[in-house]
Amino acid sequence: MNLEFRKHFASDNNSGVIPEVLLELSAINHGHFPSYGADPITQAARKEISRVFGDCDSYFVFNGTAANVLALQTMLKPHQSIICAETSHLHESECGAPERFLGSKLQLCPTKDGKITVSDIQQKMIRLGDQHASQPKVVSITQPTEYGTVYSLSELQEISNYAKDNNLYLHIDGSRLVNAAEHLGLEPYEITKFADAVSLGGTKNGLMGAEAVLLFNSSLKEEFKYIQKQSMQLAGKMRYLSAQFYAWLKDDTYKKYAAHSCRMARELANELKKISGVEITQKVETNTVFVTLPREALKATRNEYFFYVWNEHTFECRLMTSFDTTIEDVNNFASLIQKYSN
Amino acid sequence: MNLEFRKHFASDNNSGVIPEVLLELSAINHGHFPSYGADPITQAARKEISRVFGDCDSYFVFNGTAANVLALQTMLKPHQSIICAETSHLHESECGAPERFLGSKLQLCPTKDGKITVSDIQQKMIRLGDQHASQPKVVSITQPTEYGTVYSLSELQEISNYAKDNNLYLHIDGSRLVNAAEHLGLEPYEITKFADAVSLGGTKNGLMGAEAVLLFNSSLKEEFKYIQKQSMQLAGKMRYLSAQFYAWLKDDTYKKYAAHSCRMARELANELKKISGVEITQKVETNTVFVTLPREALKATRNEYFFYVWNEHTFECRLMTSFDTTIEDVNNFASLIQKYSN
Amino acid sequence: MNLEFRKHFASDNNSGVIPEVLLELSAINHGHFPSYGADPITQAARKEISRVFGDCDSYFVFNGTAANVLALQTMLKPHQSIICAETSHLHESECGAPERFLGSKLQLCPTKDGKITVSDIQQKMIRLGDQHASQPKVVSITQPTEYGTVYSLSELQEISNYAKDNNLYLHIDGSRLVNAAEHLGLEPYEITKFADAVSLGGTKNGLMGAEAVLLFNSSLKEEFKYIQKQSMQLAGKMRYLSAQFYAWLKDDTYKKYAAHSCRMARELANELKKISGVEITQKVETNTVFVTLPREALKATRNEYFFYVWNEHTFECRLMTSFDTTIEDVNNFASLIQKYSN
Amino acid sequence: MNLEFRKHFASDNNSGVIPEVLLELSAINHGHFPSYGADPITQAARKEISRVFGDCDSYFVFNGTAANVLALQTMLKPHQSIICAETSHLHESECGAPERFLGSKLQLCPTKDGKITVSDIQQKMIRLGDQHASQPKVVSITQPTEYGTVYSLSELQEISNYAKDNNLYLHIDGSRLVNAAEHLGLEPYEITKFADAVSLGGTKNGLMGAEAVLLFNSSLKEEFKYIQKQSMQLAGKMRYLSAQFYAWLKDDTYKKYAAHSCRMARELANELKKISGVEITQKVETNTVFVTLPREALKATRNEYFFYVWNEHTFECRLMTSFDTTIEDVNNFASLIQKYSN
Repeated sequence: MNLEFRKHFASDNNSGVIPEVLLELSAINHGHFPSYGADPITQAARKEISRVFGDCDSYFVFNGTAANVLALQTMLKPHQSIICAETSHLHESECGAPERFLGSKLQLCPTKDGKITVSDIQQKMIRLGDQHASQPKVVSITQPTEYGTVYSLSELQEISNYAKDNNLYLHIDGSRLVNAAEHLGLEPYEITKFADAVSLGGTKNGLMGAEAVLLFNSSLKEEFKYIQKQSMQLAGKMRYLSAQFYAWLKDDTYKKYAAHSCRMARELANELKKISGVEITQKVETNTVFVTLPREALKATRNEYFFYVWNEHTFECRLMTSFDTTIEDVNNFASLIQKYSN
Repeated sequence: MNLEFRKHFASDNNSGVIPEVLLELSAINHGHFPSYGADPITQAARKEISRVFGDCDSYFVFNGTAANVLALQTMLKPHQSIICAETSHLHESECGAPERFLGSKLQLCPTKDGKITVSDIQQKMIRLGDQHASQPKVVSITQPTEYGTVYSLSELQEISNYAKDNNLYLHIDGSRLVNAAEHLGLEPYEITKFADAVSLGGTKNGLMGAEAVLLFNSSLKEEFKYIQKQSMQLAGKMRYLSAQFYAWLKDDTYKKYAAHSCRMARELANELKKISGVEITQKVETNTVFVTLPREALKATRNEYFFYVWNEHTFECRLMTSFDTTIEDVNNFASLIQKYSN
Repeated sequence: MNLEFRKHFASDNNSGVIPEVLLELSAINHGHFPSYGADPITQAARKEISRVFGDCDSYFVFNGTAANVLALQTMLKPHQSIICAETSHLHESECGAPERFLGSKLQLCPTKDGKITVSDIQQKMIRLGDQHASQPKVVSITQPTEYGTVYSLSELQEISNYAKDNNLYLHIDGSRLVNAAEHLGLEPYEITKFADAVSLGGTKNGLMGAEAVLLFNSSLKEEFKYIQKQSMQLAGKMRYLSAQFYAWLKDDTYKKYAAHSCRMARELANELKKISGVEITQKVETNTVFVTLPREALKATRNEYFFYVWNEHTFECRLMTSFDTTIEDVNNFASLIQKYSN
Repeated sequence: MNLEFRKHFASDNNSGVIPEVLLELSAINHGHFPSYGADPITQAARKEISRVFGDCDSYFVFNGTAANVLALQTMLKPHQSIICAETSHLHESECGAPERFLGSKLQLCPTKDGKITVSDIQQKMIRLGDQHASQPKVVSITQPTEYGTVYSLSELQEISNYAKDNNLYLHIDGSRLVNAAEHLGLEPYEITKFADAVSLGGTKNGLMGAEAVLLFNSSLKEEFKYIQKQSMQLAGKMRYLSAQFYAWLKDDTYKKYAAHSCRMARELANELKKISGVEITQKVETNTVFVTLPREALKATRNEYFFYVWNEHTFECRLMTSFDTTIEDVNNFASLIQKYSN
């Protein structure tokens, strides 16, 4: 197919696949293997998952909505609810999949930076035992958040303690979790250890299309294989999902890409800050820059480097870098903003 | 990864990916493209779908269970039911996904060869308008069936006529639909034209992992995009699903693989027939051989070429060929059966 | 309202309310009581339930479909299935409510008399542990069956033993359970003791509209109060449901009505048997007579005493007696059949 | 049963049944009638409904949660959402039934008095056509609200206009709708005419246990009978629900009770206002008084006249009057508050 290849700052799911993944997909493309995950590639990928994220049961699914819904289904009955941020992907960007497939209510906490606090959670811990009220059972946090911000270790510890003390499960939506680890200078398992279950993203970090559900609480795993099949998330040729994770994790390949995309975001923020009329609106902690740009520069710049206006009222924009963003992309973009601003 | 590469006769989803698909995945792996299907590769793949299967709206999803459930969701309300064969994948092999996600009842028709008839359907058309009974609304047939048998054009026409006359939608579960076309000597669109919706398989014909929902009845498409997203079946990097279909369909590449795997099944049946104690139990019309084998040969042969015992009581077995089955595989397998039989 | 009051043999839910119930509803109609079941009348009714049906947790709901679905929800996850008779109310007459609200598959056993056997159950106990197959978890039997037939104590014991040995729950759909006890000459608790949960009918035995869910397995009760509320089955003025059960059970009032309606069915069968061309098609064990009647007598008789043609092909009919059926009704009906037959 | 009969100010569902209803239930308690609503009493009740509330299709269900969920199910697909007040019963007091049974998301509007405005609705009308966002389809308002406040005719007109102009259905949760009509000095149909569907309460106005779904938009009614049955809300002996509505509506009996309970609330507010330390916190427009009471008077008074502390932080309380609240109850209660206050 003849295609014009450009770059965006729209989302890290607009970018392609890291070369290590493509190579591994070719490398395993011989012979026959048992389907649905009973193959050695899946076994090897699970081993890598446990090495990097800590000892857990891991399952590969197709996308992030599924990773969230399936992880949550292990923890919830329909009369129980999920405490999460008003800005969570779970609430904002899954077309109501949690309500539809879990039957559960989301209890939404307003936040400034996408991060919820123990105090937010406490405010939802009311009417316990009252059959007229959906009962809180899971706290779901996004790490890094939808604003690119990162929970610190002590924030994670506090939330985790509160959850344990109050018979709540802790779920981490980690569609870009390795970027948070990069920011904190931690190994990923130092983050995931707080959770009962994690939705681990791969696609937004350079996989072709694969996410994982990591169950750290062993009581949750018993029925996962049925949940996965019934929820339309069991791949026939599972090894091609597993191989993506294997290639990404082995030899810590994921680290270089996470570091690069986060660095590009910092560079981008630094360049933009120099321009008059630009305001960075959230801390730049991972590969996301939230920013207000001169209104007159928006349209012209978006024609060349597409990105999203996040808030239709304030014209706050989201710029995302990716594993393949270059310093030229960053500089070109900043120049365009400068050029099109009055 | 170091792997031992073997062959099975277990399922065509144990085999790998045709080279054309891998090449296309590499070819498009540059630059950024809009996510979720708003990319030119998806557009091109849809064009190929319409060329081969007839004018329709097409959507790419992750697996066959999803293709079935999502196609059916466009047609059904929860108080309506699906008439299908007792042996249908929908009933037998989806862990209750249709009941779970549609809320609908399956009305099961016993069959000998996996094919249902107008008479079978008629027997389910009772209690219409009675609010205590789930109301028939869709006929779902599998082409080719789970037994590898194929509905003839006239059988399709009859069922289609009956469905239209009785206000029923017709759904075709076509996870190996191109193999049925090969058997009938028809272009695929000559089969799909009877349906309101088709679940079109790709994975079992050599794709890495992609299926399509084809909506021929334009009244069904209105809300599909929301159904797909909410049902956890919208790929972020959609172009990697689309590219698989594009590579498989362009220049009719799919035909050579379909023809080959069907030929291998015929050869296999021919070789096995020569062996005393072997009985072919279903017509060999696509890439499947149902057969009873000498009991003493089962275990030893399965160690070398794995396959499934389909019926635990009669020891009827299913042997499936694939795009990469060779005549050597066929002959080796038949020799093993011969060797291990008394 | 000016109404013409007639009798039917259509169903025991066409009849009215026993006087004891109406009196009790008036007797408690003073003052204010806590809503949703926290009232002394509900407490008293529960005590009566335990006295008659054995020690259990009991909850009052609005109708039989709800009693079935809610009882089953305590036992099932959506990937698990229910083994039941093809003729069960659960399958035939609830418009797919079990599939819709449980997400579960029904595994149907063909029967001649509405009763399933251990052998029927065994045939469904396949593919255990296979994630592609819905996993059997509950056996649901109807006592008495939809044909009015009754499981004997030894049949119940066998099914119960098998269920226990195979990690299956046993559910009894007992919409007319006291009639089965009457037939067997047993106290109701001698039947219910085999079950983990019972849907106990009241409406068809002369209540205005109340059914109960009886949970004998104490592990099932933990979340019932939430299930009941979320499932739209928690009455605000619960005491008016409870009072119905209280009035029906206290001083064993239920026994006289059960005995009467069963006796009327036996009388009816005896009278009909004398008529040429009449064939009783099922054992008359409770308050139901299945019968084929001279075709020419159907229409005219139904104008005077309405009843249902059960099978549109064989013209098998169902005649039901009720607490208020009189011997005159029986004799008049038989005379009409005689009169309108050739 | 020997019971102590007291009064509460807890809720109008703690009170009993108006005498007209009990009489009618006795009056129709003879003979047999077709079940499930095909009886003349149901027909008569529907006629009364249309007389009082305007021409519509009406269906009788068991409780308010069901009336809401079933009415909404006629209007919604699972990927569509409901715009409603954060304080709505739908969100606060149904244990997540809407999410569970509709699969839909609630879009919550904060309010001061339980009433939402066109501006509130407008703020939710974003991301239309974006498949990642649940799509607004229904506005649900409560009339009178959970705070006892009442939408004026012009407020209703504005919301209705906006809904019509924006392809939204309008649902009224009217569990005490006749009380709002009483306050506005209108006939009920002057309120309901704005809605596509109404959940009409009866239980809280003196029925034993019956609510109605009123469908004014005729496109919504087509499948209601199946929805009702499948949703476990079809009464076998339907006539005993219908008779309650019939008795309540005929000769406008409902008016005297609505007027009385509203008057009692006004009297109660007037008496309480005289007491130092008491603050009425919401307009008293129907049969509800929201109030902060001297903290020291709470416990002792609740022992004699139970009522709910609505807000655990502010100690705002809800007092509800009922058709059987007397002026003595009002005066006694006010005296107690006075007595127990410092």
